[in-house]
Amino acid sequence: MTRYRCELAWLPDTGITPDVVITVTDGRITDVASAGAGSAVDDAEVVSLPGLTLPGLANVHSHVFHRALRGAAEAPGADSFWGWRERMYALAGALDPDALYALARATYAELVLAGWTSVGEFHYLHHGPDGRPYTDPNAMGHALVAAAEDAGIRLCLIDTCYLAGGFGAPLEGVQRRFGDGDGPRWAARVEDLHRAHGGDGRVVVGAAAHSVRAVPPDGLGIVAAWAAAHDAPLHVHLSEQPAENAACLAATGRTPTALLAAAGVLGPRTTVVHATHLAADDLDELARARSRLGLCPTTEAALADGIGPTAALVGAGVPLTLGTDSHASTDPFEEARRAEWDQRLATGRRGHLDADALLTALGPEGQAALGFADAGRLETGARADLVTVGLDSVRTAGADPVTAAAAVVFGARAEDVTHVVVDGRVVVAGGHHTMGDVGGALATAIAGAREAGA
Amino acid sequence: MTRYRCELAWLPDTGITPDVVITVTDGRITDVASAGAGSAVDDAEVVSLPGLTLPGLANVHSHVFHRALRGAAEAPGADSFWGWRERMYALAGALDPDALYALARATYAELVLAGWTSVGEFHYLHHGPDGRPYTDPNAMGHALVAAAEDAGIRLCLIDTCYLAGGFGAPLEGVQRRFGDGDGPRWAARVEDLHRAHGGDGRVVVGAAAHSVRAVPPDGLGIVAAWAAAHDAPLHVHLSEQPAENAACLAATGRTPTALLAAAGVLGPRTTVVHATHLAADDLDELARARSRLGLCPTTEAALADGIGPTAALVGAGVPLTLGTDSHASTDPFEEARRAEWDQRLATGRRGHLDADALLTALGPEGQAALGFADAGRLETGARADLVTVGLDSVRTAGADPVTAAAAVVFGARAEDVTHVVVDGRVVVAGGHHTMGDVGGALATAIAGAREAGA
Repeated sequence: MTRYRCELAWLPDTGITPDVVITVTDGRITDVASAGAGSAVDDAEVVSLPGLTLPGLANVHSHVFHRALRGAAEAPGADSFWGWRERMYALAGALDPDALYALARATYAELVLAGWTSVGEFHYLHHGPDGRPYTDPNAMGHALVAAAEDAGIRLCLIDTCYLAGGFGAPLEGVQRRFGDGDGPRWAARVEDLHRAHGGDGRVVVGAAAHSVRAVPPDGLGIVAAWAAAHDAPLHVHLSEQPAENAACLAATGRTPTALLAAAGVLGPRTTVVHATHLAADDLDELARARSRLGLCPTTEAALADGIGPTAALVGAGVPLTLGTDSHASTDPFEEARRAEWDQRLATGRRGHLDADALLTALGPEGQAALGFADAGRLETGARADLVTVGLDSVRTAGADPVTAAAAVVFGARAEDVTHVVVDGRVVVAGGHHTMGDVGGALATAIAGAREAGA
Repeated sequence: MTRYRCELAWLPDTGITPDVVITVTDGRITDVASAGAGSAVDDAEVVSLPGLTLPGLANVHSHVFHRALRGAAEAPGADSFWGWRERMYALAGALDPDALYALARATYAELVLAGWTSVGEFHYLHHGPDGRPYTDPNAMGHALVAAAEDAGIRLCLIDTCYLAGGFGAPLEGVQRRFGDGDGPRWAARVEDLHRAHGGDGRVVVGAAAHSVRAVPPDGLGIVAAWAAAHDAPLHVHLSEQPAENAACLAATGRTPTALLAAAGVLGPRTTVVHATHLAADDLDELARARSRLGLCPTTEAALADGIGPTAALVGAGVPLTLGTDSHASTDPFEEARRAEWDQRLATGRRGHLDADALLTALGPEGQAALGFADAGRLETGARADLVTVGLDSVRTAGADPVTAAAAVVFGARAEDVTHVVVDGRVVVAGGHHTMGDVGGALATAIAGAREAGA
C-alpha cells in the first residue's frame, strides 16, 4: 500500500481539489480522501506530490515507428502527404522485430515521460519485408508488447487489417508487409495474438481496419465482427485526406463514413481517427453510432490534413479522444490545446472545448477508447494511474487552484510532468524515467532503424 | 576573449556546419573557424557546446504583462477576442512601475531561457491608472529597460502611440493609461525616452502606432516621421481581426493596409504585426513597401484571429519575423513550425517555409526588425549571441548533421536550449538562467500583479 498526498488533484466530482490523499493497493486506487479527513497522512510512507495530479492520460493513436521520422520528415521532397508517405514507407520497409522493439521501447518511454499511461498502437507492420510472415506471424506484435512492458506503459495493440493498396488495387512494395491476404487470415492471426496477450491486464488486443482504401467491405465486416466477438476496441482511419473521400465516392458512391456504417464498423466500441473531411450526414451518422473521435492535432497539422469539425462532432455528442499519431510531438497538453485552438483558427471564435472537456478527452474517454474503462479517473476502484504536473516551472508558474486546470491544459508542457504512476508502478519520478536515459535509447534505436533502411 | 567549440553551428554561408570554433571578444564575434583550421582549440579556455548552436533569436512582438494571463485567460467568459480583451484590460489597469518591472524581469528571463536574445516590447502601458502621467512620464518604459537588463535580454522598446478607443471614439477606462493626448505629445515623451536609452547598445527605442483603430491619420504621420528621423524600427498591429477591417472601411473607405500606406507608415523599417486578414491589394502594397511581417502564431491561434496569408506574403518578398505576443507560449521553435504548419492546415499542402527560412525569420530578419541588424548571424563582426540547442533530449534525439536544422525547427522545444550568450554575456548555462529560479520569480510577480488588480 502506498499513500500519495496531492497538493491539487483533478477528481471526477469536485474537479480541481486541494490536498487529496490517494491510497494505492496492488495497482488499484483503494481510497481517495481529503487530507483533513484522512488518517496518518504524515506517515513516512506518504509520498508528497506537489502540483496538480491528473488521472492517467491515454494516447489513442500511435504509429510508433514514425518517431524515427521526426525532423527527417520535414526535409525537402516531403512536401505533400503522399511525398511524406514515401519516406515513411522507406523506413517501414527496413524494420525487423528487434529494431521495432528498440524503437518502440524508447518512444513509449518518451510517452510515459509526457504523462501518457496507455497507448493505442495502430499496428500494421506485420510481416517480413517481402510480405512473407515471420516464423511467428505475430513477431512484430510481440515486440510491441515487450516494448510497452519494458517502457512501463499500458498497451492497446490495435492490430490492423490492411488488404489493398487502394480501391481495387493490390498491395505493392512495402505494403506487402502490412497484408494478411484476406479477412479470415487476418482474424486467425489476431486470434493468436489475443490468445497470447488478451489475459494480461496490461495489454488489450484491439482491432482496426486501416481505412476504406485498404479494406474492402467484406473485410470491414470481418474486422467489426472480430471486435464485437471479443468486446474489443475497434479503430479506423477516417477521411484524413480529401483524396480518400473522392476515391471512395468514385468507387462506391458513398462517403467513407457511410461505407463504414453500412459495413457495421461504427458503434460505441469504435474510434474514428482524424475525421477531418466530413459531410453533414457523416456527422449525424457518427453521433447516432455513439462512436468516439480520435483527433491527432499536431500530426494533422504536420501532414497538411486540415482542421476537422471537432466542435460540431462534440456538440453532436461524439466523445473526443486524442493521440500523437506520427509523434511529431508527444505532448498531451499540446494536443489538447490544439484541439481547441484549431477550432478557433477555423471559426474565429473561442470557447469550444474548455479545460475540463479536454482533460476528459485525455483521461477517461481516451482510456475507454483503448479498452481500459477502469482507468482515467482518480476514484476508488480505478486503476492506479497518477500523473503529476508541476506548477512551479517557467511555463506553469502563476497557476492557482482556481485556474490550475486551464493553466495545465493551455500552458503546461510534457516537460512539466514530474511523477507518473501506471497501474500502481512508479515509472517516472522527479521527471526521470526509471529506465534511465531515454534520449540515449532513442538515439541508438533511431540510428539502428536508419542503418537498417540505408 | 572566449572561444566556443560548437559541435554543429548554423552559419550564413554553409548552413549546418560541424565542429566550428567561435571566438568572442568584448561582446562581438571576432572569428568563426572550423576546428580543423583553428589554433589552440584544446585550450582550457575553450567552452564546449554540444548540440546545434544558432545565432541569437529575436522575439519581435511582446506584450510582456500578458504573461500573467496565461491559463487565466482560458477560463470561461473569455470566449471571444473581445471577451479576452476585457480580462487583459483588468490586469493592465492594475500595474504600476514596480509590478511591471517584476513581471517583465521574470518573463524576459523566461524568454532568454527559450533562446530569445532580443525582444521587441510593444509598449503602451504608459501612464497612471487614471491616465495622469507618472512624475517621470516614462517611468513604465524605464521599468522595462531595467527588467530587460536584469534578465539579460536585449530590448527594442517599441513605444506605442495610442490615441483613440476606435474610429472617432475617445479613450475610455483603462485605455486612458495608454494615451498621450495627441501625436506631438507622444513624440515629445518618446524623444525623452530615446535620449535616456538610445545611446545604450543594448536598447533600441522604436516607434509604433498601435493600430488604425487607435491612431488617426495625422498621428500615424507623426509616428512615421519620428521613426524616420531616428532611423528607428516602426511597428504596427495590422488587420488582426475582421472587425478592425470592417470598421476601417466604414470610417475611411480604405483597408487598414491602404490607410497605413497613405499615411507613410509602410516602408523597409516597418514591421506589420499579424496581417491576418488582408485583401489581395494589401499583399502587393506590403511587398512594394518592403515591410516585414511580424507573425505571432500561438497568440493568433489562442485569440481566434485566424490563419493569415503567410506563404503568399513571403512569396511576394515580404520577410518573415516571429513573436510570442501574449506569451501563451514562449517557444521560438513552436512559433516557427506553427508558421509552416498553419499554412498546411489552411492549404492542404506542405512545403511553404523550410527550416532555413524559419531560422532566418527567427535570427537575422527578426533582429533587423528590432534595429539590431548586426545580430542574428554567426559571423565575424556580429554581436556575440549564441543559442545552443541540445540534440540528445527525448525531443531531439535522432537528429544528425543532415537533418539537424529540420530536427530543431520542427522537433525541438524551448526546453532544449542549453546555453545562451547575449552580446558576449553568458545568461543561460546548462539550461539554467544565471539569475536563478525563474519559475519562482514568475510566481511572485504574477501573484503581485493579481493582488494589485484584485
